This record gives sequence, C-alpha cells and structure tokens, in this order.
Amino acid sequence: MIEDIVQKTLLYDFYGQLLTEKQRDIMEMYYTDDLSLSEISEQIGISRQGVYDTLKRAETTLIEYETRLGLVDKFLQHKSILSKITNMLNEILTGDHDNISEVKNKIKSIKNFIEKLE
Amino acid sequence: MIEDIVQKTLLYDFYGQLLTEKQRDIMEMYYTDDLSLSEISEQIGISRQGVYDTLKRAETTLIEYETRLGLVDKFLQHKSILSKITNMLNEILTGDHDNISEVKNKIKSIKNFIEKLE
Repeated sequence: MIEDIVQKTLLYDFYGQLLTEKQRDIMEMYYTDDLSLSEISEQIGISRQGVYDTLKRAETTLIEYETRLGLVDKFLQHKSILSKITNMLNEILTGDHDNISEVKNKIKSIKNFIEKLE
Repeated sequence: MIEDIVQKTLLYDFYGQLLTEKQRDIMEMYYTDDLSLSEISEQIGISRQGVYDTLKRAETTLIEYETRLGLVDKFLQHKSILSKITNMLNEILTGDHDNISEVKNKIKSIKNFIEKLE
C-alpha cells in the first residue's frame, strides 16, 4: 500500500505537469491533502463518481507516460547507483588507509559507477 | 546551426516516444537520414508542404514537453556535474599525493557534487 502511494507520487512528480489542471488538483487533494473522495466531491462540486473517474483516468495517463518514457524507472536506477557511490566515498573518508593505492582502486570503481550515470 | 540540431536531437531523444509514429518517421528521415523535404515527400507520398508542416508541428510539440518537464535542461546540468566529478576523480588517480588528507578533501568536494545529482 505504501509502495503503491510512493509509486504514484513519483509518477506524479515526473509527469504531473502533463495532466490537466483539474486532474492535478484532484490528485493533490487525494494524495497530498489526504481528503476522501466525498470530501473532494463537496469541495469542487462534482459527483463522488466524477472525482473517482478523474483520479483513475489521471493515474492511467501517468502510467502511460511512464511506459513510453520510463523516467521513474531510470530515476530509481540512478538513485541506487548514487547511493553506492556515496557509500564508497564515505568508506574512503572514514577508513584508515595506509597507502594511496588502495584508495585509488576505490576511486576507479567509483569512476565505473559514474559512467553508468552518463 | 549545429547547436540547433543538437538541441532538436536531444528533445527528440527525450520526448520522441510521445510523438505520433508519422511525426517520428519524418523527424528521423530529416535529422538522422539527412533527407530533404522533397525526398521525404516522394518517399512517403505526401506533399512537400505536408512534410514541412508535420516536422514543424512535431518540433513545437517537443518544445512544449520540454517547457513542462524540463528534462533536457536537467540532463545538461547533470552532464556538467558528472564531468566535474570525473575530472576530480582523475585528479586523484593521476596526482602524486603524499598524504591522505588532501585526497579526503577532494572526496568531500565530490560528495557535495553527488548530492546535487540526487
């Protein structure tokens, strides 16, 4: 459930600007402000079913954009690589290195990871 | 002129999948295969003006996507940061470092650049 919301939030972060203003408003009320369908319905004056349909259509649109562009997937891959690089940099910073050659080997590995980001 | 083509190629790389198949075909014939408008016109059997209009409409669409999502701009920023990081890693690899503290200072700077990529 939480993963589902994280996934939808990421999709919204990447492709939200391609939705209509109405779709964006309803998604923000539902996911960011945590309002119920009925509360949104009252607030913007369309039926509860209308709110539900708009929400579902917006989510389908976001998934379609991800299928075509794959930005969320790429973002998550980059995030994982950046995390590995940061760990390796921290190992150098906190480690007790007697000779520079050991550090240089780590630097070479970091360079390989950096290339994956290009 | 070259910059203009690079810019259009980047826009196409990022958002090409959001164009219609016809728009993609014509953009590839024009920019990748380097065919003239007349040659494309003959090849796909629409008027030269039709080819021109499709090309212009596709380019306008790509620019609209960039205005909304800014992926090319972000990509170029990341590329510049990655290049700086690579240079700093190379400095460590090729440098003649007597003590590790100098290297650690460089590593700290690299960490700051990595954070900008997150």
